[in-house]
Amino acid sequence: MTNTNLGIDTVVSPEGSLEVLSQSEVNRLKSTSENGQYELLRGCALAVLNCGSHTDDSKAILEQNRNFDIEVLQQDRGVKLKLTQAPASAFVEGQMIRGIREHLSSVLRDIVYVSNEIEHNDRFDLQDSEGITNAIFHILRNSGTLRANEKPSIVVCWGGHSISREEYNYTKEAGHEMGLRRLNICTGCGPGAMKGPMKGANLAHAKQRILDGRYLGISEPGIIAAESPNPIVNELVIMPDIEKRLEAFVRTGHGIVVFPGGAGTAEEILYLLGILLNPQNDDQPFPVIFTGPASSAEYWQQLDQFIGLTLGAKAQKRYRIIIDDPKQVAREMTAGIQRVEEFRRANHDSFYFNWRLKISPEFQQPFDPSHENMATLDINLNQETHKLAANLRRVFSGIVAGNVKATGITAIEQLGPFQINGAKEIMQPLDSLLQSFVQQQRMKLPGSKYNPCYEIAQQ
Amino acid sequence: MTNTNLGIDTVVSPEGSLEVLSQSEVNRLKSTSENGQYELLRGCALAVLNCGSHTDDSKAILEQNRNFDIEVLQQDRGVKLKLTQAPASAFVEGQMIRGIREHLSSVLRDIVYVSNEIEHNDRFDLQDSEGITNAIFHILRNSGTLRANEKPSIVVCWGGHSISREEYNYTKEAGHEMGLRRLNICTGCGPGAMKGPMKGANLAHAKQRILDGRYLGISEPGIIAAESPNPIVNELVIMPDIEKRLEAFVRTGHGIVVFPGGAGTAEEILYLLGILLNPQNDDQPFPVIFTGPASSAEYWQQLDQFIGLTLGAKAQKRYRIIIDDPKQVAREMTAGIQRVEEFRRANHDSFYFNWRLKISPEFQQPFDPSHENMATLDINLNQETHKLAANLRRVFSGIVAGNVKATGITAIEQLGPFQINGAKEIMQPLDSLLQSFVQQQRMKLPGSKYNPCYEIAQQ
Amino acid sequence: MTNTNLGIDTVVSPEGSLEVLSQSEVNRLKSTSENGQYELLRGCALAVLNCGSHTDDSKAILEQNRNFDIEVLQQDRGVKLKLTQAPASAFVEGQMIRGIREHLSSVLRDIVYVSNEIEHNDRFDLQDSEGITNAIFHILRNSGTLRANEKPSIVVCWGGHSISREEYNYTKEAGHEMGLRRLNICTGCGPGAMKGPMKGANLAHAKQRILDGRYLGISEPGIIAAESPNPIVNELVIMPDIEKRLEAFVRTGHGIVVFPGGAGTAEEILYLLGILLNPQNDDQPFPVIFTGPASSAEYWQQLDQFIGLTLGAKAQKRYRIIIDDPKQVAREMTAGIQRVEEFRRANHDSFYFNWRLKISPEFQQPFDPSHENMATLDINLNQETHKLAANLRRVFSGIVAGNVKATGITAIEQLGPFQINGAKEIMQPLDSLLQSFVQQQRMKLPGSKYNPCYEIAQQ
Amino acid sequence: MTNTNLGIDTVVSPEGSLEVLSQSEVNRLKSTSENGQYELLRGCALAVLNCGSHTDDSKAILEQNRNFDIEVLQQDRGVKLKLTQAPASAFVEGQMIRGIREHLSSVLRDIVYVSNEIEHNDRFDLQDSEGITNAIFHILRNSGTLRANEKPSIVVCWGGHSISREEYNYTKEAGHEMGLRRLNICTGCGPGAMKGPMKGANLAHAKQRILDGRYLGISEPGIIAAESPNPIVNELVIMPDIEKRLEAFVRTGHGIVVFPGGAGTAEEILYLLGILLNPQNDDQPFPVIFTGPASSAEYWQQLDQFIGLTLGAKAQKRYRIIIDDPKQVAREMTAGIQRVEEFRRANHDSFYFNWRLKISPEFQQPFDPSHENMATLDINLNQETHKLAANLRRVFSGIVAGNVKATGITAIEQLGPFQINGAKEIMQPLDSLLQSFVQQQRMKLPGSKYNPCYEIAQQ
Repeated sequence: MTNTNLGIDTVVSPEGSLEVLSQSEVNRLKSTSENGQYELLRGCALAVLNCGSHTDDSKAILEQNRNFDIEVLQQDRGVKLKLTQAPASAFVEGQMIRGIREHLSSVLRDIVYVSNEIEHNDRFDLQDSEGITNAIFHILRNSGTLRANEKPSIVVCWGGHSISREEYNYTKEAGHEMGLRRLNICTGCGPGAMKGPMKGANLAHAKQRILDGRYLGISEPGIIAAESPNPIVNELVIMPDIEKRLEAFVRTGHGIVVFPGGAGTAEEILYLLGILLNPQNDDQPFPVIFTGPASSAEYWQQLDQFIGLTLGAKAQKRYRIIIDDPKQVAREMTAGIQRVEEFRRANHDSFYFNWRLKISPEFQQPFDPSHENMATLDINLNQETHKLAANLRRVFSGIVAGNVKATGITAIEQLGPFQINGAKEIMQPLDSLLQSFVQQQRMKLPGSKYNPCYEIAQQ
Repeated sequence: MTNTNLGIDTVVSPEGSLEVLSQSEVNRLKSTSENGQYELLRGCALAVLNCGSHTDDSKAILEQNRNFDIEVLQQDRGVKLKLTQAPASAFVEGQMIRGIREHLSSVLRDIVYVSNEIEHNDRFDLQDSEGITNAIFHILRNSGTLRANEKPSIVVCWGGHSISREEYNYTKEAGHEMGLRRLNICTGCGPGAMKGPMKGANLAHAKQRILDGRYLGISEPGIIAAESPNPIVNELVIMPDIEKRLEAFVRTGHGIVVFPGGAGTAEEILYLLGILLNPQNDDQPFPVIFTGPASSAEYWQQLDQFIGLTLGAKAQKRYRIIIDDPKQVAREMTAGIQRVEEFRRANHDSFYFNWRLKISPEFQQPFDPSHENMATLDINLNQETHKLAANLRRVFSGIVAGNVKATGITAIEQLGPFQINGAKEIMQPLDSLLQSFVQQQRMKLPGSKYNPCYEIAQQ
Repeated sequence: MTNTNLGIDTVVSPEGSLEVLSQSEVNRLKSTSENGQYELLRGCALAVLNCGSHTDDSKAILEQNRNFDIEVLQQDRGVKLKLTQAPASAFVEGQMIRGIREHLSSVLRDIVYVSNEIEHNDRFDLQDSEGITNAIFHILRNSGTLRANEKPSIVVCWGGHSISREEYNYTKEAGHEMGLRRLNICTGCGPGAMKGPMKGANLAHAKQRILDGRYLGISEPGIIAAESPNPIVNELVIMPDIEKRLEAFVRTGHGIVVFPGGAGTAEEILYLLGILLNPQNDDQPFPVIFTGPASSAEYWQQLDQFIGLTLGAKAQKRYRIIIDDPKQVAREMTAGIQRVEEFRRANHDSFYFNWRLKISPEFQQPFDPSHENMATLDINLNQETHKLAANLRRVFSGIVAGNVKATGITAIEQLGPFQINGAKEIMQPLDSLLQSFVQQQRMKLPGSKYNPCYEIAQQ
Repeated sequence: MTNTNLGIDTVVSPEGSLEVLSQSEVNRLKSTSENGQYELLRGCALAVLNCGSHTDDSKAILEQNRNFDIEVLQQDRGVKLKLTQAPASAFVEGQMIRGIREHLSSVLRDIVYVSNEIEHNDRFDLQDSEGITNAIFHILRNSGTLRANEKPSIVVCWGGHSISREEYNYTKEAGHEMGLRRLNICTGCGPGAMKGPMKGANLAHAKQRILDGRYLGISEPGIIAAESPNPIVNELVIMPDIEKRLEAFVRTGHGIVVFPGGAGTAEEILYLLGILLNPQNDDQPFPVIFTGPASSAEYWQQLDQFIGLTLGAKAQKRYRIIIDDPKQVAREMTAGIQRVEEFRRANHDSFYFNWRLKISPEFQQPFDPSHENMATLDINLNQETHKLAANLRRVFSGIVAGNVKATGITAIEQLGPFQINGAKEIMQPLDSLLQSFVQQQRMKLPGSKYNPCYEIAQQ
């Protein structure tokens, strides 16, 4: 699918979620003032429309589409969107692909809700752990993601957006086997390991005549441009920031499969293990599987060692590594989710939201990857394990920002690479892990030479 | 259908709208403290369950069911409701009628939403006209009532809950003719003229194979016990008070048919004409039809005269009286709604909510029908017409409260009838109008002797 | 609903079942030759369109609509029907009621199928008991009436087309109670006891949010004009003759409720009891309830006595009489159908067609009620009971024909009343039974003086 | 997907089409006598269950599964199928894939219908051209394939079951582009070019939120084992023989896309062009596109030359060759189908069945590829072009049988290769065409050495 240079001017109906807005909501979406949401809307809408593009450089996307404009119109049959110079890849013969129209509607819905009901509203205390979780619950509920009367079935799939063809095919096969077993897929949107499992599951659901298969994408405004949702995604939620996005994954998913990936995948793994290490979560079943084709065996060995070194054997017990056996991945995930169902039933916990999972504030508070914050992260073994996990998570979060997020790229251009300091016994394996990510082209989509956005400052 | 004395203890799933609640929302529903919602929930739930009963005395219903209890439980598949001593008429062989389960769910949804998002929230300024309208919009949107992509089709039907068999059959026929023409029905819930049009339309929709016919009921906590929703109602909204309920009618309905009724119907007519008299609404098409069987001709003549006397010829031009011709009612309503559609289209107004209708604050601010407030209402011809309409509306609103609302009945028991003062030239026709309501048994359901809750103090 | 005199010319799409016809099928529907189906199609189509009319005189209907014409057109999107001078009551503002369009489609489907696949086809031996049953099975299957995966729920309701308002309301209440219990209704189409239960069940299904409630009408070309299907009927089947229609009732229904009626109802009762008296059916559960309002107690007592006298106590054990208790009717029918389900399950019998029921040939062979055949029926106690039942069934069948069927009415006009001969001990109670039908206006719709089409020739 | 050796014993419900059978129909399915259908049912059922296997050798499949057995059971909720030693690849964790259950149901439906209503029935004269077409119409109608009210959208995709990965990916892309444009896919079932377009369209339909996308497979008992339907196929029809299957393609499809293939594809092309050469079909729009990736350019050139030589320039005008441009394929097909729609509309022809297409008897009469029949085919230029097309079609048809059909393989084993005689100027290019098919591995699935089942006997 080639992205032609010519943009398209059109008026479309958002489809599905939120065609009904009040006049003040419409005005706010149009406003570029401080509380206005225009820039946010424009950025997310562009990301959604740009799903056919083959770049993960958010800044470049914004620049290429500097003439893109979006305007919200109030019409007799509801809200319409007027688009100017929209990316052509979102259209087929001048008609916007229906799945993308739904994504636009989701973007609108979440921006309106988060701004009006969460941020500019004294109801949720976003400094407080419970307040944050409550806000996440409300955003997800408003999006229709939380469904009573459905048994646990959501498998979160993590992994790189830039992976080899062999790894990609493996993610499709794993998704196919899970889909045949009636499991549903949740990913962070984007290409690679976020798209493969959905394609596989979609095909399997067709074979099983499952018309209501769920392909849930959870994104956030900073990353969505780099990882724009594939139109297969039939439920899209835009969380306000990366930390709430990660919390949304672990509270809605009933199990997690991790495929090979780069810095973002490492961030997700450290976040997850950091939480599961919390003694209050010891009793909770939470199936986690690391998997990939035969060629990924070494990759997983390396990561396993790094986890053993930094987080210890308790963390290693929380996941299983399965190499080159997608059927077995699907079987173990099915069995694991069965245990989750039994546990929730026994505790009268809801199936659709894991209230019981304890997430401590260091995993919830937004981390701003400024050069200063990156340089002063405390990376050594003389601290509680979950604190180290949190700080390591921040390291990788910063690298993701420097690689693909617009603000991060700009900061690196201006100030040079992040300086990462820490204890030698961690820095060395961290360095070799990152180098292997670079060599395996996991940091960026192929086709561009990767200039590291970080330097490991070894003592 | 006899309402057996034995209540039923059970646990049910609310169905449809809101099975997903946060923990703090559940706690608030359980709480009897000031901000708690337990009493409100219990009262509305009882009203909904009591739909098989044949009384309109809210106070008596609460007393008869003093052992009724409701508790919200959090379960693995969502929220459940534990009911103790629930009215047996809501059940068939021990299973709650599905429509009633949906009503319970609607009650829960609206209580949670109004309390959390409207009342204890600084977002909506309920002292301000725009703020009130905005709050009404949000309540209706949250209930799913506002649907983009649907053409105007909602006919609000007003009329008495206590009407003759002949009048009742006429409301069914009118509903049948409207249903055959694919119109949908909105009423205030309850028996009589609120039920007949829905029954007729439901049958007609079956003949036309319309599976998604809308039977919209809009109630409020004070009246719902006296006018509990018939299970045909497939969309139920509980507005916070009578004024917001009236505004919800005129902003969602595309036309209004009024059947004969008593004080409540008079209140509705005065509210509607008071608004339509506003010069800012002069250009808006808004079809209003007063109708009934041949025997109601004199009734409508009397009301028409009272309106002519008090609100003048301009008000009389806003409605048409059609006697004994349900097919003609349906035809004119269809044509009128067609004009509404064209007007909205020409003005880019939404079909689902009439933002443009100007409602001045005296029709929006809640009126408390205390004895003092009732006695000091300013009823004379030396004021602007729409102010007189507003005050006359309050007279009838107070009489409704004294007749059927629990607080009103208690006040009358303690302090005697309301005293209504005003200019002689209005008081006399008002008196005869009210007396005719009494004689025609329009004030209360038959079977009980009616003791007027008011005295016309003539000067 | 007044049936205006002006007919309507239009082209409509039949809806639902059979828009796809081959060219030879279309040609046959147009042909008036011997094997052509034009007259049959015209007669049945007229009956279906005439559902708003208030007469049961088939001959009069044909005469009133002598200018009515129907033509089958082949169009790009399927078959269309061109109607000339169609009864206006089938239309609302020029648009045919959708339910009636579906009925037209059903008529077309069954005429095409019966003619091509049953009658002019050597596959089914219609002289043979098994062949007849097999043909009935195929007609019903082709109509979509036989549904696997549905539990037994079909209650056949029999009773008069001409009944009092009190009886009619009772049939609605019984239907309502059955509908609340998720039972479905099957009748012979037409007004009175064939319409009431469907209206009641339709309302109850709306309350229970059952969108796929079944209102099954089974008719035949001879009777359909007199008992045209109400548009509520959402499955209409036209069987080739009265005997196959009766067999379709007892093989698809899971239980039978009989309301008061006239000759047709008596015919149905004698048919049913005649079959249930067959010793091969002794083990089969088959719930049969005779019911009506308090005022019908004497009616049922009289019929019960007649059955006792003619068919004996064994027949009387096959039904229960319940007076003035619609809730109890629904409860017993639910319990009875539960026993049917268990019996079928135990015997691996299908739920949707009662293959096991033994029907002997005298109940299957079409009876032509000519004057000669009527005069020579063998009515005396010196024969096997089921043979007497079969002959008594024929007596009533002939009277129905003389009352409302076009051919029967013509024959009576030409040759005078049927002469019915038989043993005195049967003739006298038969005479008084028939006289009471006349007095109670059960023979014909009110408004016309009833001239008996028979004479009891007592020896 | 590995096909384990262990078969599975189970009882399943066929799903979708035909759970309702009469007792005599069930008995016939069980019978192995002459008119019995057991062997046919067993063979087709095995083919459907064997969809995960990677062989196209029908005889080998039957031998490998010699213990497979199928029995039809009559149960309370309809017909069930008892399977013994069923191929494991049809199951996921012991549960049969739903799509395959539907295929079983389709097999049952078509075997019952064809046998009872077409073959052992004097209604259709299968010696007559019109009689054959009528029979095809009835089989397709009975299967639910002919849908009124749907606009033309069915693209028949032909091409090889054994194609390269590059060609396969191209068929997926073409299917994807057609699916994005809301076109539906019909193929002959099986792998390769019959599966790729469906997979692509299925993904595209998911993106367009089309839940009712059609993936129509048309097979026949002789070929189904070699080309078993992929579970994506959501409408499966088993025609009685190859000629009726080909006629079903051209009467239901609105356009045809041909991908590279072997003998079967050549058969299909010659059949199609032979018909389109009929002067009575000159006026009919019928879009035909030959396409493939860049590497297929030479393949199409060779075929184009062969067609030019044998059928002439008029035949060449009936198709367009598009190389390496799936988007253009989809665009031209959309435009071509638009012309078909306009033509049918102008002529009042049905959209769902092309009655107007003239097919002469030599393309309709079943051809038995015995050694004698093959050896005596008249292949020379001294005859009418459409007769030559018919004979060339038979050549390729015989080669397909010798390659993959059980009876053909057996005959070749016993009697050696078919001898194909004909005029030198045709035999030489035919020989080189066939040899290129062999070299390109288009005759059989890779992995087996191909032994030609034919010899070109050059004069």
